[in-house]
Amino acid sequence: MSTERILLEHGGGGLLSHELVTEVFLPLFSNACLDRLEDSAVVTLEGRKFCFTTDSYVIDPIFFPGGNIGSLAVHGTINDLSVCGGIPLMLSAGFILEEGFPMEDLKQITRSMAEAAKTAGVSIVTGDTKVVARGAADGLFINTSGIGMIEYPQPLSVDSIQPGDAVLVSGTLGDHGATVLCRRRELGLSSGIRSDSAPLNGLISSILAASQHIHCMRDPTRGGLGAILAEIAGQSGFSITIQESELPVRDEVKGVCEILGFDPFFLANEGKVAVFCAPADADRILATLRNHEYGRDAKIIGSVGERNGGGLIMQTIIGGSRVVDLPLGELVPRIC
Amino acid sequence: MSTERILLEHGGGGLLSHELVTEVFLPLFSNACLDRLEDSAVVTLEGRKFCFTTDSYVIDPIFFPGGNIGSLAVHGTINDLSVCGGIPLMLSAGFILEEGFPMEDLKQITRSMAEAAKTAGVSIVTGDTKVVARGAADGLFINTSGIGMIEYPQPLSVDSIQPGDAVLVSGTLGDHGATVLCRRRELGLSSGIRSDSAPLNGLISSILAASQHIHCMRDPTRGGLGAILAEIAGQSGFSITIQESELPVRDEVKGVCEILGFDPFFLANEGKVAVFCAPADADRILATLRNHEYGRDAKIIGSVGERNGGGLIMQTIIGGSRVVDLPLGELVPRIC
Repeated sequence: MSTERILLEHGGGGLLSHELVTEVFLPLFSNACLDRLEDSAVVTLEGRKFCFTTDSYVIDPIFFPGGNIGSLAVHGTINDLSVCGGIPLMLSAGFILEEGFPMEDLKQITRSMAEAAKTAGVSIVTGDTKVVARGAADGLFINTSGIGMIEYPQPLSVDSIQPGDAVLVSGTLGDHGATVLCRRRELGLSSGIRSDSAPLNGLISSILAASQHIHCMRDPTRGGLGAILAEIAGQSGFSITIQESELPVRDEVKGVCEILGFDPFFLANEGKVAVFCAPADADRILATLRNHEYGRDAKIIGSVGERNGGGLIMQTIIGGSRVVDLPLGELVPRIC
Repeated sequence: MSTERILLEHGGGGLLSHELVTEVFLPLFSNACLDRLEDSAVVTLEGRKFCFTTDSYVIDPIFFPGGNIGSLAVHGTINDLSVCGGIPLMLSAGFILEEGFPMEDLKQITRSMAEAAKTAGVSIVTGDTKVVARGAADGLFINTSGIGMIEYPQPLSVDSIQPGDAVLVSGTLGDHGATVLCRRRELGLSSGIRSDSAPLNGLISSILAASQHIHCMRDPTRGGLGAILAEIAGQSGFSITIQESELPVRDEVKGVCEILGFDPFFLANEGKVAVFCAPADADRILATLRNHEYGRDAKIIGSVGERNGGGLIMQTIIGGSRVVDLPLGELVPRIC
């Protein structure tokens, strides 16, 4: 690790995050499960496959159009289980509260967590609360961990990606990131822009039922779709080519990005999934996605090429192509 | 909840913590598993009993004699699984880092976590890292969640406690709390006082193998032995009588408590367990505890009386008796 101190970019989902994980945590914690660096650990207990995941949420602001830190914490962990093929069974909730945090806000956030869990059919079965003095935390942080059961027969993993695979995304890019950006900068844009924070277990169940040839899924959160595709290209060693013209982006999100100088390709979602599948099944999966309320704007956006060391290539709208690198860090800290 | 804002005491393991859980979290998250308020949720998956738990660690200072926040986070979650009869299988680790945190400290803490996990025979299989700006957190917070498998045939729970049960504790009280106190106040006491932070899975396995009549276990962390016994008395509806003369306390801890005005009965441990068992098995369990490196100072300290609404009664050294109430909050914040 080349820096002596933690930088904001170490938490951004980009190159520095990747370095922190691979140079500090992996060498010390190394085991077959963790080393895969998927969104959840897949473990076999008593002959059945389960998945286990954890995420801490530090989003600023705590309340935003389309949700709050509580619903986000439930959706995020449900989604990390779901993209590994897990049917979410139960969650834990760990709260770190700053002294002076308003009790009414805590109740509202707790209510949102309970509603989000109920909607997704998951129980919050265990919890923990810590309080730190004023100034030692920023309001409220929440950790959710979760356990899911895997029934899909094939392994869903970067290792399962094949040359020729189709790449799909379940909907518009950057909605969550753009919403948080607008809110934080107090832009006062009456854009009606909202976070896409949503539980993807239903959507993902429907495509897993529709195809036996899904190979890998990821939810593009920190660093957006661009970061996860660049990471997958690096891990798999395959080139991945994306058609810029096919990337779904809401006009409002485009507008915010143009004003602020961001690229929606690198802005976070919290209710979208990228899917790698056999090309023969791509249209069926696309139709299944579009049939679900969280997949109406799904698109086939690209394909997997040769194993040539890995690289993400964008075929641009004006007809050129460029290599997309994993961004160094994220330009929007505390997005989740 | 009678306060409008979160107070430090809401995190102290006492009455206000209990109120926060029972008045805010439980009514909204309510389910059979969570409502039991044990240290872990006990769930049945595919016919096998598992336990699942979570804890966030915010201890100040991060490094202390006998450990650091990393080893503590591993031991604490292993112990929460173990007291529910779970054989710890795997842990998650979620880091919240403050911008500027020294990389060397992070490496040392990570190394301690890895060593603690290895010693206890547990793997850290999944993780997450978030970074917040300077001033938005105090250095480093760690969440660990864990999954264990339960093989003990009888349910270990407050509900299993019987009148006449013996109450044991596996060793000296308040070592962790007194250590943190000394460190924080910069007392400069060259007392050689150390945290008792330790993984209890081996010790607990040995007593579960020695007796089929263990009814309930808890590890006395926040609020110390006093808080967990008062809570168990309240939950079970049984009176619990403790012999003050039998409470094991190190002379150094007694000394620190006398100087600072604390009671070791309410100071945290991080490597002790309180055991409720059938009286016929108490001596065998005591001998088994004393045979283990973490149980050398174990004692039978009291017994369970009638179901009379619940109350913790201390038979004092001078021959009187008094009712011990759940403390309002803890006087030592950020002990774990």
